[in-house]
Amino acid sequence: MSGEATKDALLTKIADKIPVSSDRVTVVGSGQVGMAVAFSLLTQNISNDIVLIDMVEDKIKGEMLDLQHGSLFLRNANITASTDYAASAGSKIVVVTAGARQNEGESRLDLVQRNTDIMKSIIPQLVQNSPNCILIIVSNPCDVLTYVAWKLSGLPKNRVFGSGTNLDTSRFRFLLSQKLGVSPNSVHGWVVGEHGDTSVPIWSGVNVAGVRLREINPNVGTDSDPENYKQLHKDVINSAYEVIRLKGYTNWAVGLSVSSLCQSVLKNTNNVHAVSTSLKDMYGIQGDSFASNPCVLNQNGITEVLNMQLSNSERCSLRYSAGCLLDLQNSINI
Amino acid sequence: MSGEATKDALLTKIADKIPVSSDRVTVVGSGQVGMAVAFSLLTQNISNDIVLIDMVEDKIKGEMLDLQHGSLFLRNANITASTDYAASAGSKIVVVTAGARQNEGESRLDLVQRNTDIMKSIIPQLVQNSPNCILIIVSNPCDVLTYVAWKLSGLPKNRVFGSGTNLDTSRFRFLLSQKLGVSPNSVHGWVVGEHGDTSVPIWSGVNVAGVRLREINPNVGTDSDPENYKQLHKDVINSAYEVIRLKGYTNWAVGLSVSSLCQSVLKNTNNVHAVSTSLKDMYGIQGDSFASNPCVLNQNGITEVLNMQLSNSERCSLRYSAGCLLDLQNSINI
Amino acid sequence: MSGEATKDALLTKIADKIPVSSDRVTVVGSGQVGMAVAFSLLTQNISNDIVLIDMVEDKIKGEMLDLQHGSLFLRNANITASTDYAASAGSKIVVVTAGARQNEGESRLDLVQRNTDIMKSIIPQLVQNSPNCILIIVSNPCDVLTYVAWKLSGLPKNRVFGSGTNLDTSRFRFLLSQKLGVSPNSVHGWVVGEHGDTSVPIWSGVNVAGVRLREINPNVGTDSDPENYKQLHKDVINSAYEVIRLKGYTNWAVGLSVSSLCQSVLKNTNNVHAVSTSLKDMYGIQGDSFASNPCVLNQNGITEVLNMQLSNSERCSLRYSAGCLLDLQNSINI
Amino acid sequence: MSGEATKDALLTKIADKIPVSSDRVTVVGSGQVGMAVAFSLLTQNISNDIVLIDMVEDKIKGEMLDLQHGSLFLRNANITASTDYAASAGSKIVVVTAGARQNEGESRLDLVQRNTDIMKSIIPQLVQNSPNCILIIVSNPCDVLTYVAWKLSGLPKNRVFGSGTNLDTSRFRFLLSQKLGVSPNSVHGWVVGEHGDTSVPIWSGVNVAGVRLREINPNVGTDSDPENYKQLHKDVINSAYEVIRLKGYTNWAVGLSVSSLCQSVLKNTNNVHAVSTSLKDMYGIQGDSFASNPCVLNQNGITEVLNMQLSNSERCSLRYSAGCLLDLQNSINI
Repeated sequence: MSGEATKDALLTKIADKIPVSSDRVTVVGSGQVGMAVAFSLLTQNISNDIVLIDMVEDKIKGEMLDLQHGSLFLRNANITASTDYAASAGSKIVVVTAGARQNEGESRLDLVQRNTDIMKSIIPQLVQNSPNCILIIVSNPCDVLTYVAWKLSGLPKNRVFGSGTNLDTSRFRFLLSQKLGVSPNSVHGWVVGEHGDTSVPIWSGVNVAGVRLREINPNVGTDSDPENYKQLHKDVINSAYEVIRLKGYTNWAVGLSVSSLCQSVLKNTNNVHAVSTSLKDMYGIQGDSFASNPCVLNQNGITEVLNMQLSNSERCSLRYSAGCLLDLQNSINI
Repeated sequence: MSGEATKDALLTKIADKIPVSSDRVTVVGSGQVGMAVAFSLLTQNISNDIVLIDMVEDKIKGEMLDLQHGSLFLRNANITASTDYAASAGSKIVVVTAGARQNEGESRLDLVQRNTDIMKSIIPQLVQNSPNCILIIVSNPCDVLTYVAWKLSGLPKNRVFGSGTNLDTSRFRFLLSQKLGVSPNSVHGWVVGEHGDTSVPIWSGVNVAGVRLREINPNVGTDSDPENYKQLHKDVINSAYEVIRLKGYTNWAVGLSVSSLCQSVLKNTNNVHAVSTSLKDMYGIQGDSFASNPCVLNQNGITEVLNMQLSNSERCSLRYSAGCLLDLQNSINI
Repeated sequence: MSGEATKDALLTKIADKIPVSSDRVTVVGSGQVGMAVAFSLLTQNISNDIVLIDMVEDKIKGEMLDLQHGSLFLRNANITASTDYAASAGSKIVVVTAGARQNEGESRLDLVQRNTDIMKSIIPQLVQNSPNCILIIVSNPCDVLTYVAWKLSGLPKNRVFGSGTNLDTSRFRFLLSQKLGVSPNSVHGWVVGEHGDTSVPIWSGVNVAGVRLREINPNVGTDSDPENYKQLHKDVINSAYEVIRLKGYTNWAVGLSVSSLCQSVLKNTNNVHAVSTSLKDMYGIQGDSFASNPCVLNQNGITEVLNMQLSNSERCSLRYSAGCLLDLQNSINI
Repeated sequence: MSGEATKDALLTKIADKIPVSSDRVTVVGSGQVGMAVAFSLLTQNISNDIVLIDMVEDKIKGEMLDLQHGSLFLRNANITASTDYAASAGSKIVVVTAGARQNEGESRLDLVQRNTDIMKSIIPQLVQNSPNCILIIVSNPCDVLTYVAWKLSGLPKNRVFGSGTNLDTSRFRFLLSQKLGVSPNSVHGWVVGEHGDTSVPIWSGVNVAGVRLREINPNVGTDSDPENYKQLHKDVINSAYEVIRLKGYTNWAVGLSVSSLCQSVLKNTNNVHAVSTSLKDMYGIQGDSFASNPCVLNQNGITEVLNMQLSNSERCSLRYSAGCLLDLQNSINI
């Protein structure tokens, strides 16, 4: 009696199954960030076909089993894990979270060469297995590693971007929402530039229902604001450090941020997100400086970048941020 | 100044958009059923790319505009409509609801030749534009028209099925749930065979949490049951007639039923649904009689059919149902 | 043998069930609009406890059965229907869609006295049964009937509002999104004032990611705009007429619009929506003129209204719209 | 100039906000399990008002901030955290995950007295602040601690239950689904008794679409089964140990399992789940032995328990499991 006799008597096969779903997302790196991305994708029904790739075999098998054990409560998601990149074949999106984690008090920029070398071992194999994928870089320092991944991948610019300040923007809007008593979805404000210490809040455009705060308080976001809105952006910059200090790492917010990007890509929505891309020839920036700017996202990745109308100080700050990043890009060995 | 100057100044194009999403569903027929299917797919985020096809240009344009006006509240769905089948190109699923509607008191079987002729004008054009689609037939009489559509399509059997008794099963479970005070999701029972008057309730398997009602009351579903559970199946058969009598048509439940089938296909879930397929060589049935049986659904359509373990009377009833349908199939002119 | 013997043997009762869920929504009126609201609430999991109230017993029973037959595919929603207002007891929200429908070519304002009289027979009974409810008026002309309902209800202003231009705003954002190639969720613009012919688009605030179109094209929305964005608002006004001409009625977009309002209330989100409320003492408006303005919505209804920073012409247009509505309010007999 | 001048100029207050939503869930314990529960509730929109309670102030503040930073991507959820039980006031559900974690190789039963003492410091304060809550115990050993919490709470039995074998059942169905090639949602089988080593698989009822595996292979689940289905239950028992060995802890599956219980309660669904409750007078069990059995869940907690029709060996196994648990219950000092 064969080991499949019951199955064979229960079910008559009509056709082969198709192992790869059309919404497959591969997540590289099964640390706190990678797993929060995977779990966010699954619980929000953004993808039902998740591949986990990592070099630590026990860890990734444990994570796979744990997710699989909950698949009854999802919509029958397909979850696989492997140390072999071949398992990622056919992915629509590849999210890269691998890399050394930002430690307490460590700047994102300190990590750069270490993580560049990791990218060299990852990116070519991912692209080989999923040549039509959209590549989203989450590893820090995000902007420089997005540049590195773009270079290593050989893909066109629209198909490689960094999660960038999509998260900083979310933190900014949450803090504004707390100050104003309005939901974050109804408070609009953008943080662009570096995902990190030199990020730039675009105070000139912060608004609720199209009403700019600067129409009411012209000094919002400046040093001469008696209400000190400027502190909110300082809190944004400090957020990652603060959360790492308190709990040891960040994961939930970045997981949700990245899953929102995946949703815009997989669902072909044309939503605008602040993600890291080349700012060459924008705002007077020269060179392929990668930093975040509002971009239109859909199945083809970034199809348009938005030309922000910046105040002089915002423009200066963004050029400064891009300049720092370009210096760093130029200092690494790809 | 060009008509797109503002857009061009606002956004710098990086790459082309991809007009067809990977979860495109075409709904043929914009009557109450077709529109309930489309709206169910959109509101439940099963597909974000819906194409409506109908011959009545005003109606379909009105429906398209009405859905588009609500797209802010969806996740930026793409909704198109056309009288030209070319607009359906690249669909993963095509749902056919076109056909004359079942009138009050009319049997589903009366409609058959009229709707067969309609299929001849529809199916080849759909398959030509989406050669890799899964074809789901909803038009009534569902079973015979699924056979017709399969013949006309030239597609393998796994890629053409009818919505069948997925709806009758849902009605059956709702009625059982009301009688038992347990949610329909936790009461299990199947209605198979014809989507219509000769449908067969599989009382032998009706259970809650694996406990069969017949273990408690061996006569459940029979004439000698003092609690008259049998009436529930009579109510199922009567449901469509009753709703049509009361409100003029049925739409919500069938919309939800079909969208659940689309979800199992698009999300590649391997869920089991009662759908209409060939029962040839099952239960002693000969010939390509199309009727509903539990089937495993995923991106390749039906990959397995379930071999039910029927009581003698259930087997007889199912063969009778299949026989009636086969007679009808043989009587039409494809 | 009792009719519940099987149930009693299957299940041992531990405690009573609670028939009213904490998210109960009553929808008054089972026409196309009321049913689209109910179906949107159910399919989007905004409420799982829907009560339908209408005077036409057959129609409402048919709609109830049709929804119940699909409850397996929802999350086991509880759907009831009655001609007796007592069935609505304990509702968190009551949505009023009852009233004569706007016919092709008919102005919303023509319906007013007829529908005022209908409100007199409805509102007191609803408030009596759900004294703590939030009352959302959808019936047209929406603004005047919201005023009427507020007067009849005896409720504080925060707990009675009209769906107003939440729908016009959605249409506006969809049309802008089509022109710009960006998702409606990422194009921000507001339509306020009357839900109807004198509605006011706030062109001064229209923006993508905080970038106002007027920073790029200062004439956007004016007569001297070579790109004729102004036409988009004309299309908004024309939308309802156009859809009614094409398909006979509007339902999907208004259903989604109202369900989005219910979500903000039930989930206590503090989202900002354009809904109809008293504009007394705002923008130089005198008297309790009801018209739409951005408002913060949550479990207590409207807790804040937003003070828009209008251009002179916007302010004039809004005062004109409010004035027309006040005249109408004063002309009816409550 | 006041610190709220901009807010006051932007928004005119109409009414007070209501700080507590009607779907508030408190999660006690911010370890891996508690946070996976909280994140599952938020991402699946089961609750939008989460309170985290723990004694480690830094940890809980870090988790709160991390979730809040992602609230833009949720539906504007309200997330609070405190070391003070007063913050949990008004909860519909309280989920208790606090307690020492099961270590690698450690039996769940070893933890019992330690965690009983923790319960004494937690339960009375929770009940005092939310006297109408449903109390769900997740801490291990789950069954005994549910008994302890019930005793300490003074609540009726229907309002205190343990997450129990809802998770073991999910693991069992996943493993069956892998063996059969059918989605876990379509493979039905229950694991009851202890959440742990003596759990009992009800092989007699395992079925797909009502077809019992034992109708095909009468030895399924027994020692004489050539296909060795029995191994699947061994794998279920081993699952927690295996995942802990591989990744150090379990979190995702238990988070999803508990959030599914919360959904059935908050949405008043009457779904049947295997949860831990008193089995007194069932299956010949004497005494208030707490163990898992299929139960109907809704807003009033457990309103019915299901009387399983067990085979002799299943009944023996369940009585054995309940006996072990009763011994343990009797050995602790409440």
